[in-house]
This record gives sequence, C-alpha cells and structure tokens, in this order.
Amino acid sequence: MELNADLGESWYDHRVGDDAALMPYLDACNLACGFHGGDALTMVQTIDLALNHGVRIGAHPSFPDRKHFGRRTLHLPVAQLRALLLYQVSALDGMVRAAGSKLHHLKPHGALYHFADGDRASAAAIVEVMKLLDIPTLYGPPGGELQRAAEQAGRTFYAEGFVDRVYEPSLHLRSRQLENASIDDPKRAAEQARKLAREGKVTASDGRDYPLRVQTLCIHGDHTGAVDRAMAVRRELDGAK
Amino acid sequence: MELNADLGESWYDHRVGDDAALMPYLDACNLACGFHGGDALTMVQTIDLALNHGVRIGAHPSFPDRKHFGRRTLHLPVAQLRALLLYQVSALDGMVRAAGSKLHHLKPHGALYHFADGDRASAAAIVEVMKLLDIPTLYGPPGGELQRAAEQAGRTFYAEGFVDRVYEPSLHLRSRQLENASIDDPKRAAEQARKLAREGKVTASDGRDYPLRVQTLCIHGDHTGAVDRAMAVRRELDGAK
Amino acid sequence: MELNADLGESWYDHRVGDDAALMPYLDACNLACGFHGGDALTMVQTIDLALNHGVRIGAHPSFPDRKHFGRRTLHLPVAQLRALLLYQVSALDGMVRAAGSKLHHLKPHGALYHFADGDRASAAAIVEVMKLLDIPTLYGPPGGELQRAAEQAGRTFYAEGFVDRVYEPSLHLRSRQLENASIDDPKRAAEQARKLAREGKVTASDGRDYPLRVQTLCIHGDHTGAVDRAMAVRRELDGAK
Amino acid sequence: MELNADLGESWYDHRVGDDAALMPYLDACNLACGFHGGDALTMVQTIDLALNHGVRIGAHPSFPDRKHFGRRTLHLPVAQLRALLLYQVSALDGMVRAAGSKLHHLKPHGALYHFADGDRASAAAIVEVMKLLDIPTLYGPPGGELQRAAEQAGRTFYAEGFVDRVYEPSLHLRSRQLENASIDDPKRAAEQARKLAREGKVTASDGRDYPLRVQTLCIHGDHTGAVDRAMAVRRELDGAK
Repeated sequence: MELNADLGESWYDHRVGDDAALMPYLDACNLACGFHGGDALTMVQTIDLALNHGVRIGAHPSFPDRKHFGRRTLHLPVAQLRALLLYQVSALDGMVRAAGSKLHHLKPHGALYHFADGDRASAAAIVEVMKLLDIPTLYGPPGGELQRAAEQAGRTFYAEGFVDRVYEPSLHLRSRQLENASIDDPKRAAEQARKLAREGKVTASDGRDYPLRVQTLCIHGDHTGAVDRAMAVRRELDGAK
Repeated sequence: MELNADLGESWYDHRVGDDAALMPYLDACNLACGFHGGDALTMVQTIDLALNHGVRIGAHPSFPDRKHFGRRTLHLPVAQLRALLLYQVSALDGMVRAAGSKLHHLKPHGALYHFADGDRASAAAIVEVMKLLDIPTLYGPPGGELQRAAEQAGRTFYAEGFVDRVYEPSLHLRSRQLENASIDDPKRAAEQARKLAREGKVTASDGRDYPLRVQTLCIHGDHTGAVDRAMAVRRELDGAK
Repeated sequence: MELNADLGESWYDHRVGDDAALMPYLDACNLACGFHGGDALTMVQTIDLALNHGVRIGAHPSFPDRKHFGRRTLHLPVAQLRALLLYQVSALDGMVRAAGSKLHHLKPHGALYHFADGDRASAAAIVEVMKLLDIPTLYGPPGGELQRAAEQAGRTFYAEGFVDRVYEPSLHLRSRQLENASIDDPKRAAEQARKLAREGKVTASDGRDYPLRVQTLCIHGDHTGAVDRAMAVRRELDGAK
Repeated sequence: MELNADLGESWYDHRVGDDAALMPYLDACNLACGFHGGDALTMVQTIDLALNHGVRIGAHPSFPDRKHFGRRTLHLPVAQLRALLLYQVSALDGMVRAAGSKLHHLKPHGALYHFADGDRASAAAIVEVMKLLDIPTLYGPPGGELQRAAEQAGRTFYAEGFVDRVYEPSLHLRSRQLENASIDDPKRAAEQARKLAREGKVTASDGRDYPLRVQTLCIHGDHTGAVDRAMAVRRELDGAK
C-alpha cells in the first residue's frame, strides 16, 4: 500500500503546504500543473525534490481556475477540456522527461476529480490524454467512470482512499462544508490507514465499518498538521508491509 | 527561402489575426504557447490547421505577460526563465506529438526575442530547453547571442528577416514607437522579400541597401492587411525559387 | 433619442474598438470597469475623452471574466455579485468624480445584461449598487427584471434598442451564433435607428415590423465598420430631432 | 499610540491571515484593494468586521501583481501608477461609503511602500489620489518622500513602526532575505512596541537603541503566530496609555 500527496501547489509568492517536510514520508506525489496551483519553477523544483527522495511522480491537472484552487466545477465543451488537460500534462511531462524520468500516473484535481468520475465524456478525455502521452496509471475513486474508462482502455487503475478525511456510510467523502469532515489527529489518521491497508475497510461517520478496497492512500499536504499525520501513517504502513 | 508567421495568438474570446486565411501562404509557423497569447484549444486547433497545410510548426514561447502581449522585458532569475520556457514549450511539444508530428523549431516571442539576443544567459537557457526537448532549429536575429548559443550547441540557426517591418541602417528593426516602422503596401513587402531572398540585401530607412543574409522570412499576422501582403510575398517567393 | 456605445474596453496591449473615432457621434457612453475589459489608465483616458466631447458617462460592469470578455454567465452567490458590482462601479465612480463629473447611468455588460434581466435577485443587486453610489439611471432591455427593479426603487429606466443587431419577432436579439445577426450596412443601421426613434418599431428577421419603445440606442464599437455606422446613425438622429 | 495591521488580503480560495481573530486587538486596519490580495466579497466582509469592532479603515493599494503579492517593484509610467491607485482606492472608498463610513487613511503596500518612499513622483501620485478622494491621513516610513509629499500637501502623516520586524542600525527594516528578520516571540514584540511607544526608540540588530519616533505601530497579520503577538502588544499598549 502506497502513500501519496498532492504537491507543488505553491505558486509565486503564495505558499501552499510544506513539500520538503512531507516528501520523505511519501511513495508517490501528484504535482500541480500550473492551473489551480503551481508555477513553472515550483514544478521543476518539486520534480527534483521527488526524484531525490525516490518518490514516484504523477500529473495532477485541474480545471483552469486559480481563483478557486480548482475546487469549482467548470462546464466546458469536451474538446476544450481535452485540450486543457493535454496542455497541462504535456507541460509537466516535458519537465519530468527533461529531468531524466517519466510520469508514473495521472490524478485529476479537486472538482475535476469528482466531476469526471461521474461524467463519461470527461473520464474518456482524461484517459485519452494518458494514452497520447503514454502515462500508465490513473488514480481515482473506486467504482466510477474514471475506473471504468481506464480499464476499458487497458490502463492500470489505482483506487484511492484518504487517511485524513471522514467517509460517509455511502463511502463518499464527508463534505468540507460540514463539521468533522477532516481527521486531524495523527493517531486516527494512522488507524484509518491501517484499516484500509490491512482490512480493506473504513470506519464511516456513523461509527460502523464498511468495505473499501483501495490501492493507494492519499494525505492532504495543505491541511495544518499534515507532516505529523504523514509521519504517523508512514510508521503504520511500514509496520504493515 | 521560407515564409513564417506567428500564429495561434488568439485566446478565449480575444481574436488576434486570421490564422486560417494566412496559413495557405506559409512554409512555417511559430505557435504561441499560452503565455502572451494562445489558449489550449486554440493551440490544438492551430496545430491541426498547420498539419493540414503541410506547414512546419515551431514553438513561440514568451515572457509570462498576457497584459502586454509579451512585449515588455521581464527581469527574471535565469532558473525561473528556464523553467517558464520548459513549461511552455513542453505543453506545445506534447500537443504536437499527440497530433503525430514533431516540433521543427523554436522562436522566442516579442521582448524575449530581443532581450535574449543580447543576454548570454537567457540565450543559453533557450538553447538548453531545445536540447532537453530535442528541437533542432532556432530562429532569431542574425549575429547575436541566439545565433552564438545555437551554433555552440550544435543546433541549426535560421537568421530571420522581416518583410513588413522597416530596417534602420544599423540593421535593427525600426522602433514601433516611430512613424513608418511598418510596411503596409503588399508590393513593397514583396519587394523587400525579393531583395532579401535573391540579393541578400535590405533597403533601410535611409533609402540605401545594406547586406542582410537570412534563412527565413517573417510576416506579422496581427497587422491589418496581413493576408494581402502574405499573398504578394508568396507569389514573389514562388517565382524566386 | 440618444446614441450610446460601450467604450473603454481596451486593456493594456489588447485593443478593442476605436474610441477616439467613435466618441464624436455619441450622446452617452458605457465604460468598462476592468473586469471584462478596460484597465485603469484606459478608464481615466476614456473619461477625459468623453468629457471633452460632452458625452454622458455610465458604468458598464460585468462578470469577472476577462477570458470570455464577460460573455459567459457566471453563477455567483448574490452577495458576491453585489460585492463585485460595488467594487467595479466604485472604481469608475471615483475616477469620474476625480475628473469633476458624475456617473449618469449604469448598464450591465454582456452575459450580465441578459442574465440579470431574467433574474430578480441579480437585478435587485444592480439597483442596490446604484442607490449606494447615487446613480440615477439604469439602461437595459425593455420589460424585464431590470426595468422592474429600477422602477420599483424609484430610479429612471432607459429601455435600450440596438441599431446594428437584428431582432427576432420575439424582440430578442438574434443570437450571434446564427448568420445575419449583425447589421453591417450603415444605411440599414440608420434605417433601424430611424424606425426605432420615429415610429417606435423595428423590422425583425421575418421582415415584419414590431412595436419596440426605447429611450436610448446602442451601437457596438467593437464591430468592424462601427465608425461609418455611427456617422450614418448620427446624421439620421440629428435630422430626426 | 495605535496598532494597525494589513487585512483583507485573502482572495477567493486563497487564505491569508486570520482577520477575525486579529481584529479585536487593532485600532486601525489597512485593507487590500484587490491588486496584490483581496477580492470584492472579502473587502465587503472585512469592512463590516472592522466597523463592528470600531477599527479605523485605511486603503492599502499596491502594484498590480497578484503573483508576487505586491512585493516586487514595477516600473510604471507615473500616469499609469496614478490611474491604478485611483482605481483601487476608489473601489474600496465606494464600499466603505456604501457601508456608511469613510476612509481614514491610505498606506501603500509592499514594494510600493518602499519604492514610493524614495521616488518623489510616485509619492506625489499617492498624495494626489488622497486629495481627489478626500482621504486625510497617509501612513508610511518616517522621513522619506511619502512624509514630505503628505506634509507639503497639507495632509496628516503618521510615521509607522513595526513590532514584529527587526530594524537595522540604519533604521531600515532588516531584509526578509536575511535570518532573524522577524520577531516571533510575543514578549519581544511587546517590548519593541513598549520602547517605540514610551521611549521613541528601537533596539536594532546590533543590540543598541536608536531613536525612532512613530505615530502608529504595525503588526503583520500573515505571519504565523500573529494573534498571540497582537494580544501581547495590545496588553502593553493598553497599559501604556
């Protein structure tokens, strides 16, 4: 079971997260491509940081919406969405190849992650961009249009679970608009990681366990206290290997 | 002698030039990469248009300055400039490869074209990006740092002349701030093309001819009347072959 | 009957329309406030130009969408829309007062013009901003929510007709997506102005006349040939006074 | 002696500082005007928050540079700078008047604060905008062009000291590029406030005291731990009254 995080989301003088502190605890990272966060120099520097720590690099493209950090759904013609994805992922891909490596995966960001998982045409556009740029693996929620599109196209799919977000019994993430949507306590985050990794289950907001099979675990780097939680989860996963 | 133009500079609802009307007269085009002009969908569509007309595609990166259309010099640390170039050119490169083709050349835009030609570190950053992305040819003014950097790195260099701009006796372009900086009359543009192509000379603002050896001719697509001039120059060059 | 146009829409190096050429033919102008077009210096300069020609100045606020020139509807919470309007119109208002004058009217731009005319809460937000900043007159389409909100609040309402756009029999403007949506011929524009001004009628796309009572006529400054049409309409209106 | 802070610098989904937590400890606040930080809704909400706490409101305009948070000097023609200032401050001024209050002061932000203090034409443009919009007081560093311009124009000038930044013996702020540029310890911040308020002195980086007469004290709301420092400084100033 691997641990991933969304990194490289700072842009110019706006700091988001502490990538250098988090990187040592990760197996994989998803790098912002300059549309919701990230700027060119941050991308280059975060690629170097990841390669120095042996962390796998994925593309983390988003709707073109810096204002709302990619967290609002934009209704775009699919030809435009495809072009915007191709632009972002190509930009990162060129940088990673220039650094002597290769993109390992793609994970859509924020509103695009959730929207595309319910929209067949958008999911297909994402997988088409992966094929055009030869990216082997897609990260996304289990059981939706993203998984379907990846598997139909013969790409690997990693279902993703979250160690620092509360699940509803429906196995959707509890809305950030509600209270108790995040898991702040490092011990609770490590316990959620343990249960997902060893038992294939998650304890939902109603206190009951539900089956949830995932291949990768995500931790949010931009939440306060992320490094402490990452450390606790890392220790748990290393023991669990 | 080839004819090139800067295309794909429209972005979203802001129209710049008429690429579809100009394309039939060109041998090569330099495509905006989204920083001074261009958006992702425009880039994809202009790549298709160029490939349909058999026109060679080059990258036309710029300073990140949409407001001033890349026409102001930005003083950036060279590591940042290199990253910004790598981002832009990678984005276009991925799109061109996705369309089954390959970038033929790189030509810096606007203020970057002139600034880098006098700044060794910037010229070196441009050529480094060409090497990282395997782009064979650099377009630029004859005899400056761009030519020097390209040749030193074993890349092909095409010195560029302009068919619709007036030259000073110094062989610099006459400043756009001054009167009579542009050549609007199609016949005069065709005559300047003829002299550059056949005689290796240009008639400067003082009415005298000066030697100017170039390998590619540029026409500005965003000037009024560009299509008429392109047609006249094309006819001249075809006769001159 | 007055003639108005949307001006001040250039921003930095992006030219939109030729305000100096159009201004002499106008009675009123609607100045962009920096969100779909316009920048601070352009606003100051266009205010000066209008005052020199004795042209009344109105605010022309829009959705915050430079990319699409304010032509896409943005669904915003009404508190945010109100704040965005207050910001834009205050900015212009301060500039006009600094130049020793006062705002005469407000006219929403593009998608906001049409959206607010059908959305009561948005129309109310617009009129509230007028009251807060003491702007007497609202321009908008006849008979919709804008007129209703203005009259309910005791503000003057000017119903607006267009001299260079074709009307459907429903008295909506013919969509720009369709052919024959614009009136390019100066004579036809002058004839549409004459009919609106003298007869209170318009000839729609089906060739029949329909009653349309308006208090102000708009001409689009960013359409090709705008100055010729403005001249023809001006001559017609002056004869018609 | 009053305590001020720069607030309202969040914009859309990008959080900067915790204005609600800081406001109770302040006498005056300087509100971002949407150019380096701030958006329209944030501005309206922060105005309400300030009025609810009886905190005086000033305008905090900046260079138009969201990327670098207004911390880089932009060399602009003075007519453009004046227009940009008039735009920003008018926008805030209209909002404050709409809320039934009035702007108390103006304080330039970041690079503009330091640049204008050494540039006579920029300082004059700032004071001209104050006059045009009837703003009585200017905040700035003691003894430079800002003070000179304000006093020459008959405006009040408040020299500003900082409670959380280290001074050099030259009485310039220690560069943020160097170590030990900030004062993080609430006790040290309170002690610097005490010495400035009661003794008109500051202990510089060399450990020696230098005379520094100021009329207002600034605390940075975007530094970590700002609320604890504000509480400590407030207690000190209240005791010192």
